[in-house]
Amino acid sequence: MTQSNSSGAETAANGASLFTLPEPLVFRSGAELAGVQLAYETFGTLASDKSNAVLICHALTGDSHVAASTRDGQEKPGWWDEYVGPGKPVDTNRFFVICSNILGSCYGSTGPASLNPATGEPYGLDFPVVTITDMVRAQRELVRHFGITRLCAVLGGSLGGMQVLEWAARYPEMVAAAVPIATTTRHSAQAIAFNEVARQSVISDPNWKQGGYYGGPAPDLGLAVARMIGHITYLSDESMHVKFGRNLQNREHLSFNFETDFQVESYLHHQGRKFVQRFDANSFLYVTKAADYFDLELEKPESYAAQAFAASDTRFLVISFTSDWLYPSYQSKGLVAHLQRTGRDVSFCDITEKWGHDAFLLPNNHFADILGGFFRHVR
Amino acid sequence: MTQSNSSGAETAANGASLFTLPEPLVFRSGAELAGVQLAYETFGTLASDKSNAVLICHALTGDSHVAASTRDGQEKPGWWDEYVGPGKPVDTNRFFVICSNILGSCYGSTGPASLNPATGEPYGLDFPVVTITDMVRAQRELVRHFGITRLCAVLGGSLGGMQVLEWAARYPEMVAAAVPIATTTRHSAQAIAFNEVARQSVISDPNWKQGGYYGGPAPDLGLAVARMIGHITYLSDESMHVKFGRNLQNREHLSFNFETDFQVESYLHHQGRKFVQRFDANSFLYVTKAADYFDLELEKPESYAAQAFAASDTRFLVISFTSDWLYPSYQSKGLVAHLQRTGRDVSFCDITEKWGHDAFLLPNNHFADILGGFFRHVR
Repeated sequence: MTQSNSSGAETAANGASLFTLPEPLVFRSGAELAGVQLAYETFGTLASDKSNAVLICHALTGDSHVAASTRDGQEKPGWWDEYVGPGKPVDTNRFFVICSNILGSCYGSTGPASLNPATGEPYGLDFPVVTITDMVRAQRELVRHFGITRLCAVLGGSLGGMQVLEWAARYPEMVAAAVPIATTTRHSAQAIAFNEVARQSVISDPNWKQGGYYGGPAPDLGLAVARMIGHITYLSDESMHVKFGRNLQNREHLSFNFETDFQVESYLHHQGRKFVQRFDANSFLYVTKAADYFDLELEKPESYAAQAFAASDTRFLVISFTSDWLYPSYQSKGLVAHLQRTGRDVSFCDITEKWGHDAFLLPNNHFADILGGFFRHVR
Repeated sequence: MTQSNSSGAETAANGASLFTLPEPLVFRSGAELAGVQLAYETFGTLASDKSNAVLICHALTGDSHVAASTRDGQEKPGWWDEYVGPGKPVDTNRFFVICSNILGSCYGSTGPASLNPATGEPYGLDFPVVTITDMVRAQRELVRHFGITRLCAVLGGSLGGMQVLEWAARYPEMVAAAVPIATTTRHSAQAIAFNEVARQSVISDPNWKQGGYYGGPAPDLGLAVARMIGHITYLSDESMHVKFGRNLQNREHLSFNFETDFQVESYLHHQGRKFVQRFDANSFLYVTKAADYFDLELEKPESYAAQAFAASDTRFLVISFTSDWLYPSYQSKGLVAHLQRTGRDVSFCDITEKWGHDAFLLPNNHFADILGGFFRHVR
């Protein structure tokens, strides 16, 4: 759904700006799609020499609203307000920050819920399978649209970190600094397993109808279970113990039935219910598949990433969190070791933190100091 | 379903013997149920002084067939053949081994799929919620039926280990040695979370019909996803990497669709499909709930378990596996520390093994040696 803002430019339903790719996008699968749009927002001011741009890549189900802004007189918080904004570690008084909704998502960028101009109906499963490569290829067109030839930095966590690595591997000449956070160079068997079970939960919902549920009831029950699975992987054993333990939810005794006994159950139900109100089930299938397909194949000297990293002058800051078991620290350490072997400029921080994978989205002074310190010397 | 064997005794459909509790079973919830049956098998010969009995407790979806036996001329392997049988670590030439299907399961013991004599229909959700306490209470009646007043040992892994601990806490005078393996004294928030998501997958299947699906299509799709979730928790990151990595399944290239790309996906699909053919969906809800409710509350001096352990003469052998993240080693270590503080006779082995929680079911020489060594000195 698109509309126009006061200046006449096209905007997405959520108020983000819309950029239409000038040429059809060629996907890694070979598919081509014309009229691809990215919903994006910017924060700060682009320098006249265009030397202060920072691209932030969001995670699985995020959107372009990375930092707070005022719209229609209302302050709208951003998903990374802790770390991005005026005077923040990524300081929008200095940097021009771009964040775009990923291809295949449902926050304004073209995805399976978008209308297929050939049919006038949503694409559904006719939408091409999206890879991290395709996401980054589309983002690159947006960056070029601003006339930017080199980004001060590309940063992001989780699926956003995969995009960061893909940027550094595909377009090293455009990336002065890369900051992959809480991420991996290859989706592990365990991470694929969680995503596949989540997808099967959606696909098993009779409302899914091979992706053709638009206009009818959506596969909410299946998608809610899928999200609940995800949430377990975003937390850690310790953080779940600290947050919930075995505390009961609004009751003094066990129920001895199959209703909600424990707070952790109530939390997961809540997360499931919230998610189906905000996210498209087919988009969920597409973005999880993109994660599963991600593999830089660094162990193969002929891989595009190994070749790019061997020749690159990109500076790397790699950050992991000790309690992240979805993309455990050892995976970041493997990347760092590879970059060091090829002689790259790489810093690495494995931040001691109990909150699991989610830590990159939560307040953390140490993380803020590291990011802030790095960005003071960017540009 | 019951039938009679050649000796006229009642047997379950799977050939196990059936024992009917002489009195109504009083559940922890307060519910009472008359005519409760346990399906059980025995291996070896009970000594005339009844001093050589060992009780083995099976895990979540196991059955009474712990060791190999010949039936109708056919050798039928047992689920713990590695460790139980003639000349095995738990040597059935010496010990009389009893294994019974847990209350609430679907391998011959009374559970939600059993006929409710009051209605002539399966109980469904009218079956009382089962706890580990109730399972053990029923097992105790079976043990007493043999005239056994003291068991040489009670052992089992996972949910079976919870039963072992419950035996040692409720009936310490009947337990000479307790061997809890790959288990915990309290189900953690993370473990509850996995179970609840799995249950929600079943409950969200429209065929589930509040548990009233008997006679119609079963909630197979939801139960398959539930089992897939479970299987991820039974393996480890490392074992999934070793077994599957990112290997593709019967294809040379990524599919760029939502069919099966990776071997790990194919493995999970297979596990899901197999499981729905052998297990009842309602039983799955009941046995996972029993696990979630399990908490010995050892930190409370007034808890039944803390009091029993403080006074018990039961010998303990506690075994954990280093890569088990469902019931991590630290949980076994907590139990061991508690038992040591109360002056108990306790041995502990944290076995270095990459196969995750499943390790207790797999061949492992070290595990066999430890079990065998312990049982040589039992009785």
